[in-house]
Amino acid sequence: MRTIQWKDGKVILINQQKLPTELNYIECKNPNRIAKAIRNLEIRGAPAIGVAAAMALALTANNSKAKDKEDLFNQLEKMAKQLEMTRPTAINLFWAIERVLRKARSTVGTTEDIKEITIKEALTMAEEDIQKNKTMGKHGADLLEDGDVVGTICNAGWLATAGEYGTALGVIKVAHEQGKKISVIALETRPVLQGARLTAWELKQDGIDVKVIPDGAIGYCFYKGMINKFLCGADRIVVLNNCSVINKIGTHTVSLAAKYYHIPFYAVAPLSTFDFKNNLKEIRIETRRQTEVTEINGKRIVPAKVKAINFAFDITPPSLVTAIITEKGIIYPPFKENLFRVASSLE
Amino acid sequence: MRTIQWKDGKVILINQQKLPTELNYIECKNPNRIAKAIRNLEIRGAPAIGVAAAMALALTANNSKAKDKEDLFNQLEKMAKQLEMTRPTAINLFWAIERVLRKARSTVGTTEDIKEITIKEALTMAEEDIQKNKTMGKHGADLLEDGDVVGTICNAGWLATAGEYGTALGVIKVAHEQGKKISVIALETRPVLQGARLTAWELKQDGIDVKVIPDGAIGYCFYKGMINKFLCGADRIVVLNNCSVINKIGTHTVSLAAKYYHIPFYAVAPLSTFDFKNNLKEIRIETRRQTEVTEINGKRIVPAKVKAINFAFDITPPSLVTAIITEKGIIYPPFKENLFRVASSLE
Repeated sequence: MRTIQWKDGKVILINQQKLPTELNYIECKNPNRIAKAIRNLEIRGAPAIGVAAAMALALTANNSKAKDKEDLFNQLEKMAKQLEMTRPTAINLFWAIERVLRKARSTVGTTEDIKEITIKEALTMAEEDIQKNKTMGKHGADLLEDGDVVGTICNAGWLATAGEYGTALGVIKVAHEQGKKISVIALETRPVLQGARLTAWELKQDGIDVKVIPDGAIGYCFYKGMINKFLCGADRIVVLNNCSVINKIGTHTVSLAAKYYHIPFYAVAPLSTFDFKNNLKEIRIETRRQTEVTEINGKRIVPAKVKAINFAFDITPPSLVTAIITEKGIIYPPFKENLFRVASSLE
Repeated sequence: MRTIQWKDGKVILINQQKLPTELNYIECKNPNRIAKAIRNLEIRGAPAIGVAAAMALALTANNSKAKDKEDLFNQLEKMAKQLEMTRPTAINLFWAIERVLRKARSTVGTTEDIKEITIKEALTMAEEDIQKNKTMGKHGADLLEDGDVVGTICNAGWLATAGEYGTALGVIKVAHEQGKKISVIALETRPVLQGARLTAWELKQDGIDVKVIPDGAIGYCFYKGMINKFLCGADRIVVLNNCSVINKIGTHTVSLAAKYYHIPFYAVAPLSTFDFKNNLKEIRIETRRQTEVTEINGKRIVPAKVKAINFAFDITPPSLVTAIITEKGIIYPPFKENLFRVASSLE
């Protein structure tokens, strides 16, 4: 299962706004359509939007009628700027754009060579994403035991990545493949309901037991001892703030409840989600349109003229995180020190 | 503004399922219609369903063609049993039924006298509820300061009581009337969205600034310092468990976040919400139908065959509650001891 595919010079995306009722695909001939899909959440999830942005640059190269290299670089950079404006918080977007541009610029050869290399780089990144997630899944699965009931928020599954495994759900899937009986309680994740719509759909497809709860119910589920581990993805892990975890709105609330009830709370993210450069003061937490909160299925639920506050993400301090699962291994506190050790020892 | 009115031998209820888009009334000639309204959440809120149950018994008396007292008592008791089965958790329901039955049984006079007294008792209870809420509001308003931003969950306003003030929102309204500038951040309160629909509507009508957030956002709002006090109502306060607070699902999650961020967390409830008899093991936490979670506005959001868990209430341990505001005054920990002192010194 792939969220993003390159096919005959087109990019095919699963339209995640239509799931779980319809499995529709968006055929993008134009990279602007991919930018729009990222903005509209037709594709979402930090690793997935990184790969989608890379594919948009590949499409730009593929469609380019540039007469020389400089012209091609200008076209790629123009598209890169547009992609960077789609969503501000998930760092994978910026990481992916930078990587593709760097590759293009460093290529020695003709304009056609650069086009080819750019496309190849995007395809490589999609494959690497899938491999990294599988590796992360294996590392994380060591933490899960037969009979565990795992809580999760939003969708950190294959739909949030290039495909196949996903991040937090990848850990669950590998444990499931290992024959461990794992049940999942998925927070519905208002306002966009990625948990109810996407996580439930993914796990159901994989034959993994999943039940949905309203987000507010997490405290009582912990109180009742119904969940014994919690796994989430991440949109950006801020290394300069000792690996603070930026993830879907609601994650921080769960982390507070987990701390009180001594439930292990794990973030699962590839190194491409780590921000080594910016601190929290420099990072923009996306605020999305109010109608995501005030309307459901196009029907207004909040009285006219009453406003909503719609942060797309929140910040979980490292003191509330038990460990971070990456493709290089599991990182325990102190996160910053251990991150550098793990990352450098294996590269 | 009244949620429940007695008018020419009929009971008129606001249909709270239709708010905020429509302000509709349900005219009940038959007490069974009131029982149905309680079951369907057309009327909800612990004090309101208590008064509604009393009115249902008044209607039973009013409509009765009983030829003797015993016959009338049997009819009242039959209706009482039916009302007791509508919802299991809010204690005000049981308290109100018991009070009306006790009054009827203790009346000396003819069958007609008993009918009249039963109706009068229900009307008295509605008026008393409003007066108690106003008194609670005054006590609680002492805790609010000019400029406070108060968080609240579900609807603990006049819609949740017989009318006028409400419990948690009554505190805010009295402070507002005193000229203090109070803003409110209302949790939307999935699955039934009483916060988004009812609390936002009530406060908007009263000219009090209100914004709506998804339930999961509460932790991040505390993190950002956007809310400095939290007020909730209660469906049952369990005295034998040192005044554990049973309230709308999601409340406990908020209480955990509030504790971490040292945000004062107040429950606001009349003494009729206190359960002096049962402990937590004996109390049933209502589980409602899954479709409240899996469908919104009649459209399914969760994939077919995936189940939801739908607890209607949760339990907040007393260690997470800063104080309980009652009509007899503000009760601080240790709650049990101070409750008995406050309650007995004033009666």
